[in-house]
Amino acid sequence: MSAEQMSALIERRLQAYLSDARIPPHLAEVMAYSVMAGGKRLRPRMLLAACDMLHGDVERALPLACAIEMIHTYSLIHDDLPCMDNDDYRRGKPTNHKVYGEGFAVLAGDGLLSYAFEIMLEAALANANDSAYLKAVDAVAKGAGVHGMVAGQACDLVNERQPAGDAQTLRHIHENKTGAMLKAAVCAGGYAAGGDETAIRALEDFGTAYGLLFQITDDILDVEGDFARMGKTLGKDASADKLTYVRLFGLETAREKAQAAACDARAALAVFEDRAAFFLALIDQTLARKS
Amino acid sequence: MSAEQMSALIERRLQAYLSDARIPPHLAEVMAYSVMAGGKRLRPRMLLAACDMLHGDVERALPLACAIEMIHTYSLIHDDLPCMDNDDYRRGKPTNHKVYGEGFAVLAGDGLLSYAFEIMLEAALANANDSAYLKAVDAVAKGAGVHGMVAGQACDLVNERQPAGDAQTLRHIHENKTGAMLKAAVCAGGYAAGGDETAIRALEDFGTAYGLLFQITDDILDVEGDFARMGKTLGKDASADKLTYVRLFGLETAREKAQAAACDARAALAVFEDRAAFFLALIDQTLARKS
Repeated sequence: MSAEQMSALIERRLQAYLSDARIPPHLAEVMAYSVMAGGKRLRPRMLLAACDMLHGDVERALPLACAIEMIHTYSLIHDDLPCMDNDDYRRGKPTNHKVYGEGFAVLAGDGLLSYAFEIMLEAALANANDSAYLKAVDAVAKGAGVHGMVAGQACDLVNERQPAGDAQTLRHIHENKTGAMLKAAVCAGGYAAGGDETAIRALEDFGTAYGLLFQITDDILDVEGDFARMGKTLGKDASADKLTYVRLFGLETAREKAQAAACDARAALAVFEDRAAFFLALIDQTLARKS
Repeated sequence: MSAEQMSALIERRLQAYLSDARIPPHLAEVMAYSVMAGGKRLRPRMLLAACDMLHGDVERALPLACAIEMIHTYSLIHDDLPCMDNDDYRRGKPTNHKVYGEGFAVLAGDGLLSYAFEIMLEAALANANDSAYLKAVDAVAKGAGVHGMVAGQACDLVNERQPAGDAQTLRHIHENKTGAMLKAAVCAGGYAAGGDETAIRALEDFGTAYGLLFQITDDILDVEGDFARMGKTLGKDASADKLTYVRLFGLETAREKAQAAACDARAALAVFEDRAAFFLALIDQTLARKS
């Protein structure tokens, strides 16, 4: 299945889930505002692509893909709240709480997280004869939870208040906050396709390396964006208070680390041979990313 | 199994889950603060009692019971936030955000909801040969989510801002906000025990009627508590701005409605004959409740 076809499937199904008439209309609107706010659908596309790479049924994995996008969106809504990062804009649009108020933003986040699990459990029940499907749901839960994304956010919040600032802390925060969900996406896709142990192990290794690559390029982009916006000279980090790869290692070394992570990610894909095209292209796009 | 044995099992297992060394220590502390804040464990006790009533294995249902208590606790933490009900105290102790700040209170809620699903999915994987167990997890998800508790909270928040104030709105809010999780508790216990369709139907009917009874007595208690605290004369509703059964129907009719709901709840239990002792006693305790 082509990448475009997968993207179209994701959009249509997300729309359908959020149009469920049994959800109170205002709640559905607040949830949909953020889900439909122009996200790149990175995690659901990775989930479906992993499933496809392992000859799995992409349509069957679609509920998992939509669920992981809902979980990602809930984390952004809560992260943007005044008591967390206090962001007024995301992707050029006012954040959820700026439009609907903090109370509804909290509820919309809670709603998206709950709905994601409802959707996955419904799919697991429809595939009850296949315990690998349940492992896919479990992988998403582990990536999202107190051993994954929420753990990363909590460490980030602690670190903001008592900056420690070493490389180990940084890696720990990002492995959980960003990496866990990227890894969960590919593993869930692999499980849904009925992948064997070797395939799942390879997807885990890829997810870990890609998560690191994603975060380092994000940090580089932040700095380059700041330079561009503020006309600053290279060498001065505009977000000096935030623990990033650029701040810790400098721009040059951060770029080298991104290349090394890309190398590890490619190596993990070797086992999938010529079926890994989507992910090999994704690595290149991430290295070259401008947004 | 006795009610005391069940309560002891719940406390021990909740302690164990929250002592998981892989959760970042500060996050675990913030989550545990609210879970261990003196809750009556109504929902987990109902879940285990329903399982026991149907000759099920109570230990096997224990992860579901702890998960439902975590979900209930997360909803209280988020409900107490300044942007929601803005409560400083709960059960005589400072609310979560008063102790740890709003950011961690949001995260602790997110963490408890996620962890609840992780725990249930782990248990479902361990019982993967039994699809009824997955139905139990699904029942909890439905009760907690955008067709259940979160829907009720959203309607409550809409109603607070644009008071409509009719009996239908009130019933709709409470069926979702409070009723859905009480019903989910008994149904999940029933599924975990492998209950047949008749048993599950009876548990659903009981859950609906008991949810109503619980809410009406809660409203009556609120008013009587206000009278007692403020030394007001009977007949004047101290919380006149809130949509309650007492405000809509008066204290006398609210009491009659509580008796009628109790009657329905008892009728639903008839099919379980003398095994329904826990729930028959619970109905009487709820009618006589003072807290």
